[in-house]
Amino acid sequence: MPDIKRIVELAKTYQEKLPEPPPALDFPTGKQIAGWIDHTLLKPDATAGQVTALCREGLEYRFASVCVNPVFAPLAAGILRDSEVKVCVVLGFPLGAELPTVKTFQALSSIQAGAQEIDMVINIGALKGEAYGLVYNDVRSVVEIAHTQGALVKVILEMALLDQFEKIVACLLCKEAEADFVKTSTGFSIGGATVDDVQLMYRLVGRKLKIKAAGGIRTYSDAKSMIYAGASRIGASSGVIIVQEAVG
Amino acid sequence: MPDIKRIVELAKTYQEKLPEPPPALDFPTGKQIAGWIDHTLLKPDATAGQVTALCREGLEYRFASVCVNPVFAPLAAGILRDSEVKVCVVLGFPLGAELPTVKTFQALSSIQAGAQEIDMVINIGALKGEAYGLVYNDVRSVVEIAHTQGALVKVILEMALLDQFEKIVACLLCKEAEADFVKTSTGFSIGGATVDDVQLMYRLVGRKLKIKAAGGIRTYSDAKSMIYAGASRIGASSGVIIVQEAVG
Repeated sequence: MPDIKRIVELAKTYQEKLPEPPPALDFPTGKQIAGWIDHTLLKPDATAGQVTALCREGLEYRFASVCVNPVFAPLAAGILRDSEVKVCVVLGFPLGAELPTVKTFQALSSIQAGAQEIDMVINIGALKGEAYGLVYNDVRSVVEIAHTQGALVKVILEMALLDQFEKIVACLLCKEAEADFVKTSTGFSIGGATVDDVQLMYRLVGRKLKIKAAGGIRTYSDAKSMIYAGASRIGASSGVIIVQEAVG
Repeated sequence: MPDIKRIVELAKTYQEKLPEPPPALDFPTGKQIAGWIDHTLLKPDATAGQVTALCREGLEYRFASVCVNPVFAPLAAGILRDSEVKVCVVLGFPLGAELPTVKTFQALSSIQAGAQEIDMVINIGALKGEAYGLVYNDVRSVVEIAHTQGALVKVILEMALLDQFEKIVACLLCKEAEADFVKTSTGFSIGGATVDDVQLMYRLVGRKLKIKAAGGIRTYSDAKSMIYAGASRIGASSGVIIVQEAVG
């Protein structure tokens, strides 16, 4: 268990004055942007047929991953096998309020079913209740299982529900827990990714963690703004449109 | 495994002509209505403090249950111990798209953490994809575990996302799986409980299963309409207001 008090103190100093951001990321040209996009379908009424179509688009456009609900992990893994396109599965989604033992079981089950990337939702209520040890353990347990199995973890902070201090603490806890990404939003809350939030994250986690912007990103212009702000992964259900606009 | 073909045939005959509804339920008088209400807080940013307050209201008003996210099952169980107020926990919520093995693990974990009632979301995508065997097994596995442990299962059909035939099949599958309740909605989708949907459910499951109406029920008048239509449980975050209005 890390020194939570130290993390809270650091968050307070960052609340006064943020660290400088690292240099801007190289920007992908043309259709290369597909490699920065998690091609996403998380609607509760999505069918196997729709997920199959999503995966075929994943292969055609060479998206970074196809992001689906856990029940579709085996289907997606079957279609994407032998390709560079990863299977990304959400966890504790979209409320983040599962028991910690359930989150670790979800991680293992999804990975065994074929997931290579896990987008987990942070325990938002624990963060708001200042139970930072719970927040850390919740993330760390999933990270440990995922890394043992060679999978990545993106931690969704649901920024629209957080105040500035909560945003800072959450980023620092994810850094401490050695998550691979922090991610702005589920796309199921009151707000999605904003440039301000991505810039804040980029200042806080630097290049130690990567940043995924998701929620409301529908056009190439939206995606570009997020990448300029520091995002190196975009979650979107309109990935095909974004790539087509990028190619021009 | 039941004869799915027979269930589909039955659904087709019901699509032509619905069975007659059973007689209306007795209506609770005054503050008795509290015993028909699941006092609910499922917001992702709910804190332990807010859940504690919810449980205290549960005790004060004698609600049927307090309905919370799984991470709060131990807290609610601690406060409600030695009372008649049940601990109700959601499962696969609100998307319903967990792996079946994860749903059974969630059921067992929640019950071990103190849940006495489980509100699970049906596999909506499987229903829409006509994979009715999957839908049945998903429900039946949770029902078996819950009943072995003495817990009830309410199956959320998310009626707003279903067409008429899907609504009918879903009710028949839940009846076949021996769930305790069918429930209209998560409260997180495009629509909540409607009188028409509750009446439809009441005709289909009769009194073999009970009906829980949830989603958008904010007043005593709303609750009354649902009970007249056949609901014997109401899910609401405004339970206190409903009881106060009922007492007058």
